[in-house]
Amino acid sequence: MRYVLVQGASGGIGLAFVRHLLKRSDVETVFAGARSPGSSEALQSILREAGGRLQLQRCDVTDEASIADWATEVKRRTDRLDFIANVSGILHDADGLGPERRIEHADPAQLQKVFAVNAFGPLLVAKHFHPLLHHGERAVFAHLSARVGSIGDNRLGGWYAYRASKAALNQFVRTMAVELKRRNKNAICVALHPGTVDTELTKPFQKSAKVLFTPDDSVSKMMKVLTELTPAATGGFFAYDGSTIDW
Amino acid sequence: MRYVLVQGASGGIGLAFVRHLLKRSDVETVFAGARSPGSSEALQSILREAGGRLQLQRCDVTDEASIADWATEVKRRTDRLDFIANVSGILHDADGLGPERRIEHADPAQLQKVFAVNAFGPLLVAKHFHPLLHHGERAVFAHLSARVGSIGDNRLGGWYAYRASKAALNQFVRTMAVELKRRNKNAICVALHPGTVDTELTKPFQKSAKVLFTPDDSVSKMMKVLTELTPAATGGFFAYDGSTIDW
Repeated sequence: MRYVLVQGASGGIGLAFVRHLLKRSDVETVFAGARSPGSSEALQSILREAGGRLQLQRCDVTDEASIADWATEVKRRTDRLDFIANVSGILHDADGLGPERRIEHADPAQLQKVFAVNAFGPLLVAKHFHPLLHHGERAVFAHLSARVGSIGDNRLGGWYAYRASKAALNQFVRTMAVELKRRNKNAICVALHPGTVDTELTKPFQKSAKVLFTPDDSVSKMMKVLTELTPAATGGFFAYDGSTIDW
Repeated sequence: MRYVLVQGASGGIGLAFVRHLLKRSDVETVFAGARSPGSSEALQSILREAGGRLQLQRCDVTDEASIADWATEVKRRTDRLDFIANVSGILHDADGLGPERRIEHADPAQLQKVFAVNAFGPLLVAKHFHPLLHHGERAVFAHLSARVGSIGDNRLGGWYAYRASKAALNQFVRTMAVELKRRNKNAICVALHPGTVDTELTKPFQKSAKVLFTPDDSVSKMMKVLTELTPAATGGFFAYDGSTIDW
């Protein structure tokens, strides 16, 4: 892995991906995109230490032009990527958005917002960056999904928008895996479940977690899983422990 | 089945549901919603013949107020429904919307439109009508999905928006099945694959179909499947021949 990219780099898991990748001696450059990189103290602190190895740029997945601009900038610096982590996601926000406990809470504006960030955004990131994965060598494209996005595994109900946006993301991942394979037989495009991780996203819901990972723990586990995957695994859905998850 | 409802009644499959239900002697009233019922010659013709047994109203699933208005009107006439068919769907339109052959064709405005009709709309219909299914007796809630929405069965790729919108719909169906079961243990809430049916939706894509059903054929087959389902099947995804489909 020489050139790697992290989309959604200012959240708990995205930051941990950036930290993890910068520690690797084979990684030359980490391209990192975040909605507002200037206001992330954590990212700015990493940047001061990493210098030119970290290339930080604004990328809002709900604004396709910002994705296209970022891709143009990355393509000026490299003609290939060995690894992409597509991380950004939303479950709740300060404007009152939150997971629906009952169907009565389903709301068109909230559905649009959750799908724009969790499903359409990652697809648009893939649209602009996938050409950098067609180099014929091993290329890993990891998408942060979640077990609650599994349809077959859904026994509790609730969380309509979040669950279905991750199911839509899983379908996007599966669909682009078919397409990527035709352009690079060594591409590995998968959906990942990070476990329940101590981040802003899970903060209101950590009580029900049996195990709570730190972001660094979760990322280490996921990177280990990815390292062991072969191209035959492309289009799959894997948990942090390497087990496959039902769609 | 005494009181039944069809959402998306002016399309090929919706019309066939209306015709099928009106033929049944146990059905007292068919409530039918369509985006523009006045401009559907087929619906108007059925209405002239059916008289008061067919209650027709405007319902645009991308306009929640129109769904709420329709539900208010239906609730003035009945306090229960025995069957709902949630049918409307979009794959292409006259404004240039169509299934993406490659990821480069993914477009935020088209994604929003396809998801609004195929996933959010049916969920909002469920939000406003599900209370009429809590009567404790057998209540069937059928949602028109499609085999191409199956993530596990996706080997061809392409059709990003349509595939993922149906995967999202499937997750909504599974999620609401959990919720409905708590309110009525005899509720059966399922996703259906109608086969490839000769309708406006499939017209540009019929060449690759091994078997092409008429809408009446497809609806007869789906109604037979639904009749044979027990409440244990709730939350499932079934084809026109009764076989289960992978999520």
